[in-house]
Amino acid sequence: MMNKITRRDWAGLAAAGTLSHLLAGLVQPAQAQPDATAASKPRIAMLVHPDMVMLDLIGPLTVFSLLRAELHLVWKDRQPIVNELGLPLTPSTSYDDCPAELDVLFVPGGLKGSVALMEDAQTLAFLADRGARARYVTAVCTGSLVLGAAGLLKGYRATGHWYIRDLLAPMGATVEAKRVVVDRNRITGGGVTAGIDFGLTVAAELRGEETARLIQLVLEYDPQPPFDAGSPERAGAKLTGDVLARRQPLIDAAKRSAELAKARLSL
Amino acid sequence: MMNKITRRDWAGLAAAGTLSHLLAGLVQPAQAQPDATAASKPRIAMLVHPDMVMLDLIGPLTVFSLLRAELHLVWKDRQPIVNELGLPLTPSTSYDDCPAELDVLFVPGGLKGSVALMEDAQTLAFLADRGARARYVTAVCTGSLVLGAAGLLKGYRATGHWYIRDLLAPMGATVEAKRVVVDRNRITGGGVTAGIDFGLTVAAELRGEETARLIQLVLEYDPQPPFDAGSPERAGAKLTGDVLARRQPLIDAAKRSAELAKARLSL
Repeated sequence: MMNKITRRDWAGLAAAGTLSHLLAGLVQPAQAQPDATAASKPRIAMLVHPDMVMLDLIGPLTVFSLLRAELHLVWKDRQPIVNELGLPLTPSTSYDDCPAELDVLFVPGGLKGSVALMEDAQTLAFLADRGARARYVTAVCTGSLVLGAAGLLKGYRATGHWYIRDLLAPMGATVEAKRVVVDRNRITGGGVTAGIDFGLTVAAELRGEETARLIQLVLEYDPQPPFDAGSPERAGAKLTGDVLARRQPLIDAAKRSAELAKARLSL
Repeated sequence: MMNKITRRDWAGLAAAGTLSHLLAGLVQPAQAQPDATAASKPRIAMLVHPDMVMLDLIGPLTVFSLLRAELHLVWKDRQPIVNELGLPLTPSTSYDDCPAELDVLFVPGGLKGSVALMEDAQTLAFLADRGARARYVTAVCTGSLVLGAAGLLKGYRATGHWYIRDLLAPMGATVEAKRVVVDRNRITGGGVTAGIDFGLTVAAELRGEETARLIQLVLEYDPQPPFDAGSPERAGAKLTGDVLARRQPLIDAAKRSAELAKARLSL
């Protein structure tokens, strides 16, 4: 039965969640503002896909759930997919059934899965369609590769996981080595854990900074990493080389797909 | 079928994950060290429960998956539970079937769920049994309340989500307002996002600091919160009061359960 919850059921369950309850009254000030879009529930569609990195999804999803948003987890169909942790996850809607008008379109990463999607015509067509109309077009980690392959980063500044972000350039993006990059309605984040910084940035866009700060407090997001190795510059050449060596086959595949996308996008 | 994967299947799926592949060769140096425990796959059991905050689990789980650990998601039975996001999650084992000897016993939070477990005799008995023998006894967020109610924090320094950590004192803990507290084999973390700092701390205990740094780099954990409101001190009195006001009924319930535990534990 749990595999068959409908989109409506799922949205209902999320709305009944303990975290959502907490903010029930707190978003009222934003609703009183003259901005008509802020007054309604933001409609957010988050792509889910096989080999997705679960934390890429759960970081932003946890933030968004506190906005009392209308949340959709979208994939080709509603069969459970298995992410990189081996945990099954059931999409709440399909590409066909996903609402046409979105406030936020979001793509999580997971290098193996992103590489597969960079040449998946069905997924690229879905993203291009919804992305052309969405209020914000967003990704974290290697998800930005998929946005790029769908032609959605042409002429935009963008970022992604440190080991693939340079590959956004052939697809028309101006790469920035930053944690979160906001360029007009494109918002992209770095690797995996950047999804939390990204999520708070999007929350502020949708509901204002005070609401984002409240969510930060609820999630006690006062990070204090026990070590200092969160970027190639800080981790040093040896660790960086170790990671790159093991990622190289997939990075090479992503590079080939980026070149194909470049040709396809007439760049 | 996805609801019926066995513990063995699940461990196999996790081991086949893309992230785990990345570290396949990298943990060899730790295995070459004379420490016998580091040479084997650490066996980690993570409690999952209804109303659990998913990010409490997924932060540490993502780190642990990169250690090539033997991972178990344990609950009373193997029926899917629904967490605070409305996402179903299937435990991989039950209290009865969970291995007796663990390297790490971990309890995630979620205030509503933690309050329920503070007086759940079956869960407290399971935690007391495995906790008495585990190499590390750990929790993040409000999960430390459950460890406390099981008598596992008596005489230990510990922390938890900022809005409940004082309630660990009646259960015999010395409360520290820190992100992660290590006292002998007890490792506890603050609210929700502290699970990432916590996970890296545990990773270093199990596999050494170099492996923890490598995982930090893979997860690009170089946090840059867009706002500065991650603790009551930084968020200020108004936001803190807003959160507390909405949490008060559950905090009061946790306080009552902590007093009951105090009597039960003869403190």
